[in-house]
Parts: sequence; C-alpha cells; structure tokens
Amino acid sequence: MEVKNILVVSPMYKEIKSLVEKEKINKEFRYLVEAEMVQDDLLWADAFVSFNVNSSYDYSHIKWVHSLGAGVDKFLHNRDWPDGVLLTRTICSFGQRIAEYCLGYILKDVQFHDEFHELQKQRNWSPITPKLISDQKVMIYGTGEIGQNTAKILSGFGAEVYGVSLSGIEKEYFNEVMTVDSHFSQLNEMNYLINTLPLTEQTVKLFDGELFNKLSNVGFINVGRGATVDEEALIQALSNQQLKFAVLDVFTQEPLPEDHRFWSHPNIHITPHISAVTTPEEGVACFLETLKNIDENKPLKNIVDVKKGY
Amino acid sequence: MEVKNILVVSPMYKEIKSLVEKEKINKEFRYLVEAEMVQDDLLWADAFVSFNVNSSYDYSHIKWVHSLGAGVDKFLHNRDWPDGVLLTRTICSFGQRIAEYCLGYILKDVQFHDEFHELQKQRNWSPITPKLISDQKVMIYGTGEIGQNTAKILSGFGAEVYGVSLSGIEKEYFNEVMTVDSHFSQLNEMNYLINTLPLTEQTVKLFDGELFNKLSNVGFINVGRGATVDEEALIQALSNQQLKFAVLDVFTQEPLPEDHRFWSHPNIHITPHISAVTTPEEGVACFLETLKNIDENKPLKNIVDVKKGY
Repeated sequence: MEVKNILVVSPMYKEIKSLVEKEKINKEFRYLVEAEMVQDDLLWADAFVSFNVNSSYDYSHIKWVHSLGAGVDKFLHNRDWPDGVLLTRTICSFGQRIAEYCLGYILKDVQFHDEFHELQKQRNWSPITPKLISDQKVMIYGTGEIGQNTAKILSGFGAEVYGVSLSGIEKEYFNEVMTVDSHFSQLNEMNYLINTLPLTEQTVKLFDGELFNKLSNVGFINVGRGATVDEEALIQALSNQQLKFAVLDVFTQEPLPEDHRFWSHPNIHITPHISAVTTPEEGVACFLETLKNIDENKPLKNIVDVKKGY
Repeated sequence: MEVKNILVVSPMYKEIKSLVEKEKINKEFRYLVEAEMVQDDLLWADAFVSFNVNSSYDYSHIKWVHSLGAGVDKFLHNRDWPDGVLLTRTICSFGQRIAEYCLGYILKDVQFHDEFHELQKQRNWSPITPKLISDQKVMIYGTGEIGQNTAKILSGFGAEVYGVSLSGIEKEYFNEVMTVDSHFSQLNEMNYLINTLPLTEQTVKLFDGELFNKLSNVGFINVGRGATVDEEALIQALSNQQLKFAVLDVFTQEPLPEDHRFWSHPNIHITPHISAVTTPEEGVACFLETLKNIDENKPLKNIVDVKKGY
C-alpha cells in the first residue's frame, strides 16, 4: 500500500503535529479538528488518523484508517465498514495502563483504604488486617493485549486469574479461559470481575441481571465499554450485595450526563474514561510505527478485524 | 541447643495454641496472657515466644526468645539484652505485605483516586491522565528483607528504585544503594520515600527538617518505626510542600493518642500499624520453622543481631 497524503483529525492535532514534525516524515499531512473537515479532505487523503469517524462522510476512498484509541466501536458499531479499507488501532502502553488502574482499585479494596479513612475521621485506632492479592480470585473478560497484561500482573502477585473470551482458547497468565456460555458456574467464587471487552453484538449488555445473580460481594471494574453493562441490573446488584462496589471508567453515554444516578451512588467509583488514555506521545508513536510497517510491507500487529469488531 | 519447655505469652494465645496443637510437637507448652505471667514461668521455660518482653522480669535463664513481630525494638531499645540469649524474629510474608501496602498508596496517588473522588462529588467529568509507575523515582530506607521485596515489586513495574542502608552495600532490585550520609544529593529527584528501617540509635529522628528540606512534593510512606520521624518537622514539610502527603502506619506512641494532631491533618493518611500484621497462622508457621531448625541444628535466617538492633 502506498501512503502519501495523511489526514489527522483530532482535538489534539496541534500536539500531534509538533510531535510528527520532529520525525521528518516524507509525506503530506493535513491537521484539522472535526468541525473543519470537508469531504474533499477525505478524497485527498490516503490515510485517516482520528479517534472516530463521522457518519455523514464517505470514507471509502481512504486506504488506511488508524484509530488513535484502543477501542474502535466509534468506527464500527452500528456502521458498515467500507470494503478494503484497512483499520488499525493504538495498542502500545494500554495494557500496562489498564493493569495499573485495575491493580490500584483492587489494592484500595484489600488494603481497606476507605475503611481506614473513615476510622481516621473518628480518631479511631482499630486494626484491620489487609488481605493479600495472592488470596484473591479474579475473572477477566477479554484475553487480548489488555486482558492478558492485566492477568500477567495479577497472577504475578499470586492471584488466581480466570479469563472469558469468545473462543475460550487458553492463554498464558490465566489459570483457565472459558467462553461466555461456560463460565457462569465459576462466578460464585470470584472476588473481582474486570471487563476489558470491546463493544460488539455479543457484548451489548453482557453484564446483566442473570450474570450478576451468580455473584456474591464482588468488586466489578469496567475498563471495556459502558454499553456492555445493563445499568439497571448493576444498581440492583449493588443493592443486593451481589456487587460490593463498581469502578466504572466507561459509560453508555460519555461524558456521563450530570443528572445520571451513578454520580451519587456510594458504591460506584467514577473515573472519566482515563484508564487507557492516549497521550499525544503514545498515539503518535503507535501511528508512526504502523506507518513505517506499512511503508516497509511488514506485518501489522494492530490490525482490527472489522467483522469481529476488535 | 535443647528446647523442651516453651512459654507463649500473647493476647492471641488461644489461636496460637490451636494452631500449634495441630502439629503434634513433642514439647511442653505454657500459653498465657502477659498479666498472668510470673517469674517462675520464665525459670521453667527454655524458650519464650511473644511480641515483647516486660522489663520487670528476668529473662536471663531463657535460651531462646522468638519475636512474633518483625520489629524487635520492644525487646532491645533502651534495654540490655541478657548475654547468650538467642533472639529470632518473624519475617515470613512481611516483605510481600509491606510491598502491597506501599504499592497501594503509590497507585492511589498516581491514579488520582482522591481527585476523582472529589470530581465525582461535584458530578464533574474532567479527565486527568494517570501517571505510570515506570515514571516514578522511589527511595527506600532499609535494604533488608522488607525493603528489598518492596524494591523488587516497584522495579518490576519499571520504577527507578534507590536504597539507603547503614553499609551502602549494593543489593539486587536497587539502581543504587547509598549510605545515610551520601544520599542527600539524590533526594531532590524523588517522587516517593519509603521507610522500612528499624528503630536504633542511628535511626531515631532520621527523618528531620534537614532531610525534608531536600524534598519537593514527595509522598512519604512510613512502615518502619514511628520514632524515626521528627513529628514537628513532618508537619512543617507538609506545609512547605516538601511533602505532598504522608502515609503513616507507625507512630512514636501507639495507639496514636486521640488528641494527636496527625488524626485531622488532610494530607496525613493514618493506618493502625497493619502494614505487616502477624496473623496467628504466619506467626506460628515462622515460630515452628525456627524451632525445627534449632532442633536440627540448622542455620537460622531470622537471628537478630542484638548489637545492631535488627
């Protein structure tokens, strides 16, 4: 594939531009915010680099689309992908970032941060023995780059880590990998559930009342996509102590609307989609690495299977 | 050394007893709380197992004293140790426990837990990008079992870890080990200071104004001993932003008195000496392992050098 003209559409385009220009790439670039883009820009470009596509435009003349994020549902969900257009995505440090995000919230729980904070307010010296990560059982949904890196770190601390994937194929760092259909019987033993799954036809509202009903006092961490969770069922599961708490980094609607009841729930911890932020440096590094591999006809590790949706 | 009669003095003596009795040890045991102990018990015993010694008794007839805790300052500080009495201490899972405690508070900071909690209360969706542990520089005081295990875990995440010890001898998992006298010039680059040092003549008020003056916006974690810190200087360093926050698990006086001003300081996080709790299971496992090694004349890994004090 020959790539000459590259269109970068992003609110961060100034930072991206200054980083790309350091590399002296022999290509033509246009940098825009989405509101300034017109159809002619897409006719001019061989490559399109962005966090999303805007469905009012025709992208079928583009040869290669690179997603600056790890998730590509804004490119694929409820949308027909034009035939023959290559789609790649940013992976890079996401695995590590999400693993540290999850580990931080598991340690907050096993080390009783909230409990000691409350006791301190009361000037109350009441020892509680922290739990070790090695005594925890964790189910990770998604065994790709991100899920596997999280499994690697948690199993490194001695946790028992199980995986759930479409295929159920065994992967390193998981005690066992199951399919969605076969994993229900294991759920009652889990201490934590971590969702790293993309949004696809199969994952919409995967976390519903039927699944939550199998749990007892579990910490749920969602770093995948918000629409994989049935919000009503989540609230219910917290009331029933099927869930002990939920740490949510992703939501069906983002930003989370100001009147959403998640904001005020005492056992929901909200972060504004930051568990795997693309810093301009990382987004550019991953884009340039992909560009170099394309120019040199090398295999790409970050191609999206547009049928599977990830 | 022949050990026949073993005196266990602990508020947890019932749990210890039931755990020891599972092992069918061919020794005589007496289990007491401290208030019930009399001098005759100490004349009867070859071995004394406890968290501390009571200075109103004479321990010189005992052959072996085993500390159920890792710290032995309650045995040695401001006290003459009787000649020829072996002192051993519990090490076991302390390294892992303290490492997870420290990692939890570092992740709380780099993942902006407090900031996101405040934003949630305001229903404010304002992304902040978490920092990676690999970008952090950490100085660990004490390069023994506990300091080294903490260094192992943090350097495993890619942090730059430096050590401070009496000898300054290089150890695995530390970029560099320095002596107290030589480490001051490195302090201005640190993001976190972790103290794991025992209380000795050399470490009393080691963390004083002179040391804190070298810091800028540092997170300080004390899992060693409270009396290693000059409390006035700590409060001052927090006011000057030399310290960003202090996580304190140990205090000069424990329990921390109810009227102590640490309780209400917004940037001091207090835990009630729980970073390396001896669970009865672990204390007993470590005591029995030491007993077995003594019976079989094997080398002991947990002997305390009573002159050094650790």
